[in-house]
Amino acid sequence: MEIEEGRIGSRVFREKVMEAEEAAELIKDSMVVATSGFTPAGYPKAVPLALAQRAEKDPFQITLLTGASVGDELDGALTRAGVIARRIPYQTNKDLREAINCGGVKFVDVHLSHMAPMIRYGFLGNIDVAIVEVVKIREDGSLVLSTSVGNSPTFLEQADKIIIEVNISQPLELEGLHDIFIPEDPPHRRPIPLQRVSDRIGEPSIKIDERKLAGVVITDIKDDSRGFPPPDENSKRIAENIIRFLKKEIDEGRLPPDLLPFQSGVGGIANATLRGLLGLGIKDLELYSEVIQDSVLDLIEEGCLKFASGTSLTLSPEKRDYFNKNVEKFKEKIMLRPQEISNNPEIIRRLGIIAMNTAIEADIYGNVNSTHIGGHKMMNGIGGSGDFSRNAYISIFSTPSSRKGGEISCIVPRCSHIDHTEHDVQVIVTEQGVADLRGKTPQEKAEIIIENCAHPDCRAMLGDYFSRCKNECFGQTPCLKREK
Amino acid sequence: MEIEEGRIGSRVFREKVMEAEEAAELIKDSMVVATSGFTPAGYPKAVPLALAQRAEKDPFQITLLTGASVGDELDGALTRAGVIARRIPYQTNKDLREAINCGGVKFVDVHLSHMAPMIRYGFLGNIDVAIVEVVKIREDGSLVLSTSVGNSPTFLEQADKIIIEVNISQPLELEGLHDIFIPEDPPHRRPIPLQRVSDRIGEPSIKIDERKLAGVVITDIKDDSRGFPPPDENSKRIAENIIRFLKKEIDEGRLPPDLLPFQSGVGGIANATLRGLLGLGIKDLELYSEVIQDSVLDLIEEGCLKFASGTSLTLSPEKRDYFNKNVEKFKEKIMLRPQEISNNPEIIRRLGIIAMNTAIEADIYGNVNSTHIGGHKMMNGIGGSGDFSRNAYISIFSTPSSRKGGEISCIVPRCSHIDHTEHDVQVIVTEQGVADLRGKTPQEKAEIIIENCAHPDCRAMLGDYFSRCKNECFGQTPCLKREK
Repeated sequence: MEIEEGRIGSRVFREKVMEAEEAAELIKDSMVVATSGFTPAGYPKAVPLALAQRAEKDPFQITLLTGASVGDELDGALTRAGVIARRIPYQTNKDLREAINCGGVKFVDVHLSHMAPMIRYGFLGNIDVAIVEVVKIREDGSLVLSTSVGNSPTFLEQADKIIIEVNISQPLELEGLHDIFIPEDPPHRRPIPLQRVSDRIGEPSIKIDERKLAGVVITDIKDDSRGFPPPDENSKRIAENIIRFLKKEIDEGRLPPDLLPFQSGVGGIANATLRGLLGLGIKDLELYSEVIQDSVLDLIEEGCLKFASGTSLTLSPEKRDYFNKNVEKFKEKIMLRPQEISNNPEIIRRLGIIAMNTAIEADIYGNVNSTHIGGHKMMNGIGGSGDFSRNAYISIFSTPSSRKGGEISCIVPRCSHIDHTEHDVQVIVTEQGVADLRGKTPQEKAEIIIENCAHPDCRAMLGDYFSRCKNECFGQTPCLKREK
Repeated sequence: MEIEEGRIGSRVFREKVMEAEEAAELIKDSMVVATSGFTPAGYPKAVPLALAQRAEKDPFQITLLTGASVGDELDGALTRAGVIARRIPYQTNKDLREAINCGGVKFVDVHLSHMAPMIRYGFLGNIDVAIVEVVKIREDGSLVLSTSVGNSPTFLEQADKIIIEVNISQPLELEGLHDIFIPEDPPHRRPIPLQRVSDRIGEPSIKIDERKLAGVVITDIKDDSRGFPPPDENSKRIAENIIRFLKKEIDEGRLPPDLLPFQSGVGGIANATLRGLLGLGIKDLELYSEVIQDSVLDLIEEGCLKFASGTSLTLSPEKRDYFNKNVEKFKEKIMLRPQEISNNPEIIRRLGIIAMNTAIEADIYGNVNSTHIGGHKMMNGIGGSGDFSRNAYISIFSTPSSRKGGEISCIVPRCSHIDHTEHDVQVIVTEQGVADLRGKTPQEKAEIIIENCAHPDCRAMLGDYFSRCKNECFGQTPCLKREK
């Protein structure tokens, strides 16, 4: 494949250019393979596809570590080829999810901020090979990442061997978008010097130990990212409720008038909320989050978003083309950092983040299930929701009050699985309303959640459950006898 | 009451000296009262007792905020007098616990590091009166706290009125033991500059707005603290298992040879563990924890503990007398900080704390219940266990495998209440053994926990439950149909 000048500035790297199939040969059965990628952005594509192909005639299995979810060329293709034995720390791929829930793939669900330190501390074993997508190798041999940072800096530092994918579909102008910083390990760690969303604390590229370089593969496969559908009626109403809540917090002096930086899960509610705040005249918003989506570019262009810090840039194909033509402009307002920094409790508490995450279900006592459908089937994983919600200035969880046309209540008597406990859930929002749980007892929470958040069709059922609890096993948190 | 010279150095304060009964009159029905105290150490005593007495003829109720648990003169006396309507954020008093579980007192269970910022952000409403125990008021009017710091700095800053209890049973030499630091509020917070357990980052005393001073009461009632019974057989075996585990971590390079600072819950297991490590020749231990107990003094005297940072000094009456005669010596090795700093995620991650907390029960998937007996009755509260376990370098939960002579298994199919989720529990230790859960799936965790930690009499029952789960609702985390 032909590549522009400047893509591979270092001779050492040029001498290691090889076909994806050849690089894939470096990966053997039982190896631990760690890759770049966070959402379908910046993950390696050519080598994983070659690996999947090889597995058809030569079956083998690996442990796969990433930043978070990745594109179908990696999680999908390798799952279908039976290559993934174990997967850490997060995923959203349909085929992989099915394999996890059938027992075909072992999945370990980890707080995203915990992943890099756990690797460095040796808690997850040795990394045999790191595969990392870059846009460019500089003359000094340092790597310029592409559309995500994730755990790549730590993977590159810790892996025995390194395979680089140079993706020529990603623009060279991404150089300068990244801020690479690895904290020292205890007991020698110093304060992480980030004090403003826009602070640059690290380097734009990553130096590696070149003795570990095993191969360089050139590819032009694009990120498998898609746009999000426009928000539905429920999402709009949830966003309106969040906006009304935040407005009241400002009016009553519990939030600064110009608000605080936002973290938001991926999707329509967050977009609708940010837009709604602008409608209220609140300007100069800042984002300190994981994923930078389409709407962030719009808000920047409209002059409403001062700065966005994330660990991945996940744009629809249309927005991506637009971004690629205007990288220089956007680079002044966007920065990508390692997920250990984007999700770091130290920084999240310091900046005072307003955290907005979604729930699969919430129970009447304010516990939240973010991961398991029906308590047993894995959906995606906890992701960064724990990093942000535990440390936020204010922590909001949203969910529609019911799903499947009202057949399933998302406000339940008791969560079938708990990822966020009563101690971490400050505000629950549905399209029905807002439950402000700060300073409330479990029983007060139950009354507020049933009244304000449950679907009207489910209120009587939930109220009846709560009454029976109070009759059967009273106490701080009443429950039914069989639940004891 | 006669007091030594130097106890009240400021005229403004001397002019406000009054009887406890008179100070108690300042507290009216429905007020929010915030006091010093963390464990039965450094809490006000005379005014609460006067309040309880007043309530006998003039019933009234208050919301009571503290650092954590406090002595019986406060939580006990006020509960028995029916004065407490609402209590935040932690308690261990028998009478109060009963009142909470009968619905007589509303209890809000909060992460201890969250309390001060929630107050400053206005999330828990306005504080009408702060009552704070001190050993001394300096000539410049600044307050020298006594045996705990807790939330006192923020309570004093935020309260409308201030009552000071000068406790002459606490030695004047405590001056210099405290390190008072309140972080800036977002968005202006800077890094908390603490980088070593022994770093002093703040002031030894607290300046207040003297216009808020409403009364100064002199008392000589001693802290209601008691020693802990010597560790029982199970605690000893748990400690041995923890030591063996830590030794292996050092040997295999996952922990530095001279270890990292410890956090430990209150009680015998922690003491036995620290002692055991010394037996292994591991020296120069450091403690970055909440409570400094008797054994810490012994370890310091033996030259084995380099430094201990906490938020309260909770000694048995015998050790207290010894400490009081040797304060100057111990002050070089002990520091008390606000609980917002002792329990701060930023500091806990930076220092790389080894966290040791106890569980009421743990389930086979690695979730932990720290608060509720039988899922409905409050025991004490979550305390600082969430602050430490989520952010620790390594997080250990311990429990005997069974209680009440084997009648109750502490390893259960499903926790009746969850305070620490599968994402936060890295290691479970019982007297039976150690379950190292790092990098394991829920199903792998179940096998290890049942095999290594459950009481032998309960293993078959737990194994049977796990098998039935796998048959009924398979998936990432198998469960029974009725648990869905």
